[in-house]
Amino acid sequence: MADIFESSDSQRGAFELPYAKSRTFPGTFTLKRGGRLEDVTVVYETYGELNEAKDNVILLSHALTGDSHVARHDMSDNPGWWDILIGPGKSIDTNRYFVICTNNLGSCRGTTGPVSVNPATGKPYGASFPEVTMEDNVKLQKMLLDELGIRKLLAVVGGSVGGMMCLIWAAQYPDMVQGAVTLATSPCLTSQAIAFDVVGRNAITSDPNFHGGDYYGKEEGPSVGLAIARMLGHITYLSRESMIRKFDVETDRCNARKIETQFETEFAVGSYLAHQGSKFNERFDANSYITLTYACDFMDFGDNVPEIAENLASSKCKWLIMSFSSDWLLPPYQSAQIVDALISQKKAVSYVNIQSDAGHDAFLLPLQLSTYGGLIEHFVNNLHDSLMTEQSRKKDIHLVTDVHETPCSPSDLGTFQDGFGRSHDGRLDFESILELIPQHASVLDLGCGNGDLLKRLRQRSSKSRLMGVELSERCIQKCVARGLDVVQKDINEGLKAFHDRQYEYVVLSCTMQTIKEVEHVLEEMLRVGRFAIVSFPNSAYLPWRTRLFKDGKMPKIGCDSEKSWFNTKDLRFLTLADFHQFCDEKGYSVRRQIALDTIKGTKVFQNPNDNASMAIVELSR
Amino acid sequence: MADIFESSDSQRGAFELPYAKSRTFPGTFTLKRGGRLEDVTVVYETYGELNEAKDNVILLSHALTGDSHVARHDMSDNPGWWDILIGPGKSIDTNRYFVICTNNLGSCRGTTGPVSVNPATGKPYGASFPEVTMEDNVKLQKMLLDELGIRKLLAVVGGSVGGMMCLIWAAQYPDMVQGAVTLATSPCLTSQAIAFDVVGRNAITSDPNFHGGDYYGKEEGPSVGLAIARMLGHITYLSRESMIRKFDVETDRCNARKIETQFETEFAVGSYLAHQGSKFNERFDANSYITLTYACDFMDFGDNVPEIAENLASSKCKWLIMSFSSDWLLPPYQSAQIVDALISQKKAVSYVNIQSDAGHDAFLLPLQLSTYGGLIEHFVNNLHDSLMTEQSRKKDIHLVTDVHETPCSPSDLGTFQDGFGRSHDGRLDFESILELIPQHASVLDLGCGNGDLLKRLRQRSSKSRLMGVELSERCIQKCVARGLDVVQKDINEGLKAFHDRQYEYVVLSCTMQTIKEVEHVLEEMLRVGRFAIVSFPNSAYLPWRTRLFKDGKMPKIGCDSEKSWFNTKDLRFLTLADFHQFCDEKGYSVRRQIALDTIKGTKVFQNPNDNASMAIVELSR
Repeated sequence: MADIFESSDSQRGAFELPYAKSRTFPGTFTLKRGGRLEDVTVVYETYGELNEAKDNVILLSHALTGDSHVARHDMSDNPGWWDILIGPGKSIDTNRYFVICTNNLGSCRGTTGPVSVNPATGKPYGASFPEVTMEDNVKLQKMLLDELGIRKLLAVVGGSVGGMMCLIWAAQYPDMVQGAVTLATSPCLTSQAIAFDVVGRNAITSDPNFHGGDYYGKEEGPSVGLAIARMLGHITYLSRESMIRKFDVETDRCNARKIETQFETEFAVGSYLAHQGSKFNERFDANSYITLTYACDFMDFGDNVPEIAENLASSKCKWLIMSFSSDWLLPPYQSAQIVDALISQKKAVSYVNIQSDAGHDAFLLPLQLSTYGGLIEHFVNNLHDSLMTEQSRKKDIHLVTDVHETPCSPSDLGTFQDGFGRSHDGRLDFESILELIPQHASVLDLGCGNGDLLKRLRQRSSKSRLMGVELSERCIQKCVARGLDVVQKDINEGLKAFHDRQYEYVVLSCTMQTIKEVEHVLEEMLRVGRFAIVSFPNSAYLPWRTRLFKDGKMPKIGCDSEKSWFNTKDLRFLTLADFHQFCDEKGYSVRRQIALDTIKGTKVFQNPNDNASMAIVELSR
Repeated sequence: MADIFESSDSQRGAFELPYAKSRTFPGTFTLKRGGRLEDVTVVYETYGELNEAKDNVILLSHALTGDSHVARHDMSDNPGWWDILIGPGKSIDTNRYFVICTNNLGSCRGTTGPVSVNPATGKPYGASFPEVTMEDNVKLQKMLLDELGIRKLLAVVGGSVGGMMCLIWAAQYPDMVQGAVTLATSPCLTSQAIAFDVVGRNAITSDPNFHGGDYYGKEEGPSVGLAIARMLGHITYLSRESMIRKFDVETDRCNARKIETQFETEFAVGSYLAHQGSKFNERFDANSYITLTYACDFMDFGDNVPEIAENLASSKCKWLIMSFSSDWLLPPYQSAQIVDALISQKKAVSYVNIQSDAGHDAFLLPLQLSTYGGLIEHFVNNLHDSLMTEQSRKKDIHLVTDVHETPCSPSDLGTFQDGFGRSHDGRLDFESILELIPQHASVLDLGCGNGDLLKRLRQRSSKSRLMGVELSERCIQKCVARGLDVVQKDINEGLKAFHDRQYEYVVLSCTMQTIKEVEHVLEEMLRVGRFAIVSFPNSAYLPWRTRLFKDGKMPKIGCDSEKSWFNTKDLRFLTLADFHQFCDEKGYSVRRQIALDTIKGTKVFQNPNDNASMAIVELSR
């Protein structure tokens, strides 16, 4: 049975930071909201070695109350808040990359904050500490990197609040950032998320020991208020499901742990909150908590796609966005808004909403590490490899950079199988689609699976603008491993993030017969693409229709032909003639058509509605 | 633009309760958790007239901090917390029914609570007020009803905490309760919901003006702590979506209303919370808040279906359960657990998860009133009518009691239309299904639509055990209006709430071809039913298969034949021969079969796989 007191916070002890370095910048640091600080100090830690070219740098930004101590530096060191992800041989491999993490402004973990001495008064800033923003944190990180002579960032990586800083980095220093990775982040807190911060701050400022923020040196500080704010925070970091598991299933909800505390200890969850609230006072400062939560609440990169798009328009990097399905604090739809904004700006982006019941904290926990860690690893390695390739190309040296490929399951692979169960690895249908698409055309592939078609397109043209849309988490992992840009979306809901004519070709390959909203999806394809290419099995194929006519039994038709009427993924049955009629009625022009007999493995030129088991049709308005 | 300060709480002012009556019970009242109270007083209000037979009584129970003032008594009166639902001509029609609502124990709104004077000391109970439970509230309500000579309750009705009391009523006094209606309730708070109560109580008890609960008569009480607890409560009563609408879309989130308050007023949501928190102190008492939240947290009717089922086993009433889709405090899955528990105990229950973005408070708001109010109205009226019918039957008088029926849309109605678009109102298929089912057999109808088949079964036998399962909210409203028991479930996910052999017949009428999990659903039907009856269109019907064979075009097949391949709801295409083969492979016996030519409107006796457009097949294992 797990210890109910365990939390993603448990590793963030009050210990000293023996490996932390610091840099002080003499002079005035002007803050975005008008305040000023003198002689700002930034505390940071680094992992791995900076290479000679200084092009192996990954900048991490921490979450709300985190610090620079990301991972252990040696075996005697305390583990950091992302020890599971960062280190030699780990997802972010410090044998390869130079990782740097700074502590945020306003924190009490080293960087200048309310507990720091104000040079003007010789006393701690306390309540006089000015309002800081995420933009100020990025500015300070940039100053530090300048000092270290770092002019390129292979990637900026951050979860939660740290993800907000990645957004700012990519927008503000587009020529410096090659990749941006965000987890469980938001462009702008919802009013619900702000509300929790408001209540937490009210608990602190209403504590009689707060003294308007000037409690330093006094016998007692606002430890009660801070503990209450932290209890509330902990509720929002977990999900309902993870709380049920922790306090109802693995524990008896009514049996509280006996602990020494001034707080209520009824119920298992009560003793957990009392413990977390009290413990937080050992390592955190109330003024800092107020400053940092305000910094989150002030973050405003837009609460709608057009506004976010405008804010991210300047970015030039590749993006990897991840959210977690049970995160209700910075909910998945906000990451999806960032993704839609990037799509509308024609940026290279991959996105997955990772299935998890661990809530907001999922990005710090081992449970989904194989997914988010794997995605980050492939994304960063591909970035690095393509950088090397480019450099080698400049030097006329060619490197093999294809990543190691783990096979998907047959259903993920979507290997085309014909009506009698034989499989064609050559994918005659893909070859025909490639025939229809000019070499350097931009292509959007709907239901791209594990990226087989996109990979072929990429091999033909390293510079064409390609993107995939896919529902399966596992397939997207595979696509990201292959260096493809694929976003998770249900195509039935349409392509509203995409502009009119954003692509030359929009492809729906062996997928139309599995979707519900056929009319809507085809309309969207011909809005977003200049041309649409649709491939589908033809129910009028003579061997199939003869089977029904003669035997009175349904033939096994199409792309999913191992399955029967009761378990096939195919939900729509149509003939090539039906599709032509449909196009006529909708006013779509059939530009070109390739008909295939996939059983014989040949193209069909005579009577395709009779003789083709599959049709590939190119449409335009 | 709506006033952002408006809330479901806004009508619950600090006003006096001029229409409230009270009753004091001399002697000791022993509480469930061991405490004792002397000379308990209960405050209550009544609406409408108690009839001579005293059989028109509806007992309401209020939510956490509510009171007895449900609705206005006259036009000069203050509106109550459910004024939209209760009154002359409203959903609960006080021209017809005698409505009674008591104030809960521990409250500060009249009934004995911490502010009341302890007869033993002559001082307010304060912190010495004992722990109360929902069971104690029910016990007190029962004592009051006994005093009033009321021995039957037409219905107990309650939302949120009030719903918990309905559960207890039905279980504890099964012979007294004829109907139970719950909205947005829970058999047992989740640890997440308890956690919010814990933080709220900690805010109160940590307030230095709390003085361990003995703050009466002191200059200041724990108004800050109570305000913070209330702010937190308000977040949980709303949903993320309703907060976005209120504070982001209709308001500028950063522009707070200027109000006089000691609390933070940054952000629109901040000034809202400050306002709600401060205002709450005008009408509520901190010790009461603690007592009442503990009473919720102690509620334990089970956190899993078997335990809830055991607790509800004794109940004999008809049930109407409603949840709201965006309620994350007492989430819909908990109402669904109650429903599953009732199903497993063979109780008569209807259930809808009402689509709403208003969060937990939806049951108090006008937005979904037409749905929940309409359901309650029909449910209560049907209960009353069937009571009258029964009484009349005893007196050998017959009354017409069929409710007024508003027609559903054609798609809701599910009127069978044949392959060439003609419609048969006679529903030959229903007549055939009725032929197969003995008159008094118990029947579960999956995908029952607006209850057309169930209604025919009910007309044949007033006593047979009938239940429907349906996904559409609108269809379930129609079924409840017809007095049928129908629960909202996606049949693809199976029937796990139902026991093996719970029904003699499980029917899947013109629905199999629209579902994805065909194998699972049929397995479940033959587990839950002794016999399964499946009706479906036969794709081998000669006119249809000839169309495909000769013209190479898909025919319009089956129950949804106005639609084409791209927009039909039918996702599965099979022939009668395919179905027989499927049954063979699964080991199901085909007991009887009726084949229909729905175009000609006749039964088919020769070569049904060729000549029937529809088949009705009875199966057993």
